[in-house]
Amino acid sequence: MAIVLGPNQYGKAEVRVVAVDRSTPRHELVDLNVSSSLRGDFAAAHTAGDNAHVLTTDAQKNTVFAFARDGVGSPEAFGLRLARHFAGSYDWITGARVAVESYGWERITVGGQPHEHAFRRPGGEVRTAVVTVDGDDVHVLAGLTDLVVLKTTGSEFWGFPRDRYTTLAETRDRILATAVTARWRYTGADLDWDACFATVRTTLLEAFAATHSLALQQTLYRMGETVLETVPDVAEVRMSMPNRHHFLQDLSAFGLDNPDVVYHADDRPYGLIEGAVLRDDVPPAEVAWLGTPGFC
Amino acid sequence: MAIVLGPNQYGKAEVRVVAVDRSTPRHELVDLNVSSSLRGDFAAAHTAGDNAHVLTTDAQKNTVFAFARDGVGSPEAFGLRLARHFAGSYDWITGARVAVESYGWERITVGGQPHEHAFRRPGGEVRTAVVTVDGDDVHVLAGLTDLVVLKTTGSEFWGFPRDRYTTLAETRDRILATAVTARWRYTGADLDWDACFATVRTTLLEAFAATHSLALQQTLYRMGETVLETVPDVAEVRMSMPNRHHFLQDLSAFGLDNPDVVYHADDRPYGLIEGAVLRDDVPPAEVAWLGTPGFC
Amino acid sequence: MAIVLGPNQYGKAEVRVVAVDRSTPRHELVDLNVSSSLRGDFAAAHTAGDNAHVLTTDAQKNTVFAFARDGVGSPEAFGLRLARHFAGSYDWITGARVAVESYGWERITVGGQPHEHAFRRPGGEVRTAVVTVDGDDVHVLAGLTDLVVLKTTGSEFWGFPRDRYTTLAETRDRILATAVTARWRYTGADLDWDACFATVRTTLLEAFAATHSLALQQTLYRMGETVLETVPDVAEVRMSMPNRHHFLQDLSAFGLDNPDVVYHADDRPYGLIEGAVLRDDVPPAEVAWLGTPGFC
Amino acid sequence: MAIVLGPNQYGKAEVRVVAVDRSTPRHELVDLNVSSSLRGDFAAAHTAGDNAHVLTTDAQKNTVFAFARDGVGSPEAFGLRLARHFAGSYDWITGARVAVESYGWERITVGGQPHEHAFRRPGGEVRTAVVTVDGDDVHVLAGLTDLVVLKTTGSEFWGFPRDRYTTLAETRDRILATAVTARWRYTGADLDWDACFATVRTTLLEAFAATHSLALQQTLYRMGETVLETVPDVAEVRMSMPNRHHFLQDLSAFGLDNPDVVYHADDRPYGLIEGAVLRDDVPPAEVAWLGTPGFC
Repeated sequence: MAIVLGPNQYGKAEVRVVAVDRSTPRHELVDLNVSSSLRGDFAAAHTAGDNAHVLTTDAQKNTVFAFARDGVGSPEAFGLRLARHFAGSYDWITGARVAVESYGWERITVGGQPHEHAFRRPGGEVRTAVVTVDGDDVHVLAGLTDLVVLKTTGSEFWGFPRDRYTTLAETRDRILATAVTARWRYTGADLDWDACFATVRTTLLEAFAATHSLALQQTLYRMGETVLETVPDVAEVRMSMPNRHHFLQDLSAFGLDNPDVVYHADDRPYGLIEGAVLRDDVPPAEVAWLGTPGFC
Repeated sequence: MAIVLGPNQYGKAEVRVVAVDRSTPRHELVDLNVSSSLRGDFAAAHTAGDNAHVLTTDAQKNTVFAFARDGVGSPEAFGLRLARHFAGSYDWITGARVAVESYGWERITVGGQPHEHAFRRPGGEVRTAVVTVDGDDVHVLAGLTDLVVLKTTGSEFWGFPRDRYTTLAETRDRILATAVTARWRYTGADLDWDACFATVRTTLLEAFAATHSLALQQTLYRMGETVLETVPDVAEVRMSMPNRHHFLQDLSAFGLDNPDVVYHADDRPYGLIEGAVLRDDVPPAEVAWLGTPGFC
Repeated sequence: MAIVLGPNQYGKAEVRVVAVDRSTPRHELVDLNVSSSLRGDFAAAHTAGDNAHVLTTDAQKNTVFAFARDGVGSPEAFGLRLARHFAGSYDWITGARVAVESYGWERITVGGQPHEHAFRRPGGEVRTAVVTVDGDDVHVLAGLTDLVVLKTTGSEFWGFPRDRYTTLAETRDRILATAVTARWRYTGADLDWDACFATVRTTLLEAFAATHSLALQQTLYRMGETVLETVPDVAEVRMSMPNRHHFLQDLSAFGLDNPDVVYHADDRPYGLIEGAVLRDDVPPAEVAWLGTPGFC
Repeated sequence: MAIVLGPNQYGKAEVRVVAVDRSTPRHELVDLNVSSSLRGDFAAAHTAGDNAHVLTTDAQKNTVFAFARDGVGSPEAFGLRLARHFAGSYDWITGARVAVESYGWERITVGGQPHEHAFRRPGGEVRTAVVTVDGDDVHVLAGLTDLVVLKTTGSEFWGFPRDRYTTLAETRDRILATAVTARWRYTGADLDWDACFATVRTTLLEAFAATHSLALQQTLYRMGETVLETVPDVAEVRMSMPNRHHFLQDLSAFGLDNPDVVYHADDRPYGLIEGAVLRDDVPPAEVAWLGTPGFC
């Protein structure tokens, strides 16, 4: 028996780069959080402290800022430029993963007009992209996190088995709320990333709203299914959806009824529903997900 | 010398109540985080563990849920109902403070139409209200937190004194970004709370955008001043505005210039600008702010 | 009526300075988070964007690092040096507030011996100091936050009034848990800060453990009282203690009893008990608390 | 082409169960955060909203509380009981994953003696366990997160390649700080879990302290290697170690030198070093890691 080095990677996490396009008076703004990881032959650094193969994480950070000088574009495109650069920089670097969070900004409205250089950041929801270069292969995941949605009706939950520990009552009408994390894998590496993202996001929202839900699993599946039906370039969708419980509050001790009016929004514990929806004719690509929780 | 009890209060914090109005197919939703505190004669609980005066925090929580049964309305109105109830419940309770955070939800658009019962929570910005009943007096603060705004130009900073430790270069053009916490005190207790809030919020945003800034202090003051100019029912505005630094990245080591294109959004440390703007003819009301950081 | 500038302050928040004393092979480490605020005549910056009086927050940051070059000492002593420096730097600066968070590190034990230069940071509890210079006056607050404590017995809660909304059962034995935030004001400005802090912290812990509690208010008061009894240099103690509820879980649906064995640790809502304990012969000093939540 | 359901799981996350052993006056306390996930045939819930196979997450929560009635023991043992129960409850449930976070409490010392029922929770570091039942196989991972450690010397970084974007200076003496997340897989399912955990934790700490580091990769590898050398029942160790940069502050503008005394502890970006160390004769078991970030 010998003790050996297993899979490993290293990089610079959370480079907060903001780039402004001032080419016209109507400024444009991109606000990113970029993390890079390199894969390849870094054994000597681990076993002997020999850094001859270690492109420093400081240099990776510098590269992010330098590449932003030429314009950033979409998170996917920026990730592709960076990942290809890193993977091609030295022959012992055989792969790179670049993960990007993108924070949206909206123009402030002044006198009914969108302002040219003043913005508001809505917060919450974040757009994500993960690009993986693995030898000659390139994989692109897009996604979003913290898309918080709720339905005040159109959600039932009944028909479940009852074991010794089941005390839950069945319900034909409940609040359904969740914070969607979704990530989807594209089959191509040269798409209109912003348009694809916008379409998927709209599809997810509409499917959540339009699905009469008998189970959060059903809602999740329907959301993924409609994405695949709508965007041919998507091979699979992985989703993680916490069930943010809203419990109807019992007011009877105070002489009050509660006909689905007053709820307690609970924190913990919460249900957690996770699943993938995919095309059955697309080859899997687990390396695209390596380091990215498929079920967040 | 004796050791004595000083100021004290107690209550239930962060009651997460969600109320749904289903009176029409187009549901309405309010989502609140309510914290109550009682003031009065609770000395015996402190010095002897005698709870005869202690209206339990559990009962306070129950009251929040029970009162929501009749409809919630605006955060300010709900706070007023609760604070008056608590302050009037026993003669040894001489005051109450009710703080409300309100989380906004937007209707999901499906097929171009706002959905009747499906919502999205944008996240970030929170609307706040703090109602204080103090004997016969009632005070209402409204506010917002985490209103994140940024200008890509229209901000200068120069003309400051230079001591031994001053190394900062002057600038005629910088990114200005902040997360506004603002709280304002109304002179009345029977206003159109939602309309007032909407006006103040719009005014703050427009003033941020429209002010050519020579100092973040100047922006803060102008924001407060325009609120007071616009809404006669506001007596004072207190604001806390962290200066979220965006540093121009030096790319010269890579043979690149950086004509105000690439910035590093830094986390810490950050500047912190705090100040009040007020009408000079309105009596102060410090009790309205007790327990609420004036400068958050 | 005129609109005027009210109270204001500005400074640099959260300067993360770490200083190492290598004067012997047994290294010493201090790890601080320092925030400074200046008070005085900064009206022109607000009303006209004139920065002639604005000692930059960048210079304040530089000062923190420069002063650390000579050794830091206790958080209180470092705060005093900085606050006096800032308040004395220009005649229009009439006051300064310096708040310090101090993170403790313990030596890692190797082979039974504390290591000379390897440390572990326990996390959680933070030591705090707030120094305020106000004209010729100097005030020092010490404190701690997030001291999480729990008793599995020795806590009762009964004898409270029952209004329409009171449903809580009385109990003669419950879990009592809280996260103590305590801040205390010293009467002097030249004390053995580390020794005082250690004594107060020990006193708080022992009083929590030793007090048979009939109310969390009683525990809070007894903790403050013992601090004042033990440390003559402390004038007042202000405490904020959330009641972290541990609810006995009802297992009867599964045919199980639960004789004070299994609890659910709930998140929200929580009780919040806040109060001050003080000597009746010490003059108040509200300026010492300005900007510091007395009840956090 | 068809759209199909891919891998999926669901369960109840973050059940906060606290159990007290009062069998002697010296109480014992366990404080856990338990998350369960079930795997198997849940296709109908996804595609048709048919919940006949869905053991509710509410029942899973109830099971956690009910099982705690008989005593909890170690996190690994509790996870094993639960995972085996869930996986054996219905024939369509083919696997279960139970993840446990365990929060340590120390006895408060009163008068030099550890108190019998009063405790303090240190915060920070968390002990973890993940048990996976997959058909007839059982896998146990133990671990810890947020073990924050720092060395003031004994760390070098030099000899790295210099590409166009490399500007970092070499150093023969730097601060090395990280927050260790480590997870290790046992080859057995019937070990003395507490003793193994204690040994691994001590080994990790001592290896961090004792290794003269030429690269954080080297430290990581040495930590894993010593665990495998010390505990024969461990098959592999996966670690994620952010490089929490401490930058020497340049004080020359103020006429001061800085001989490794004053540092700035930076937040973002940070280096992130991730790797596995393993025995080359142990079969891999990827299902043991499914849903658990191997590189957190």
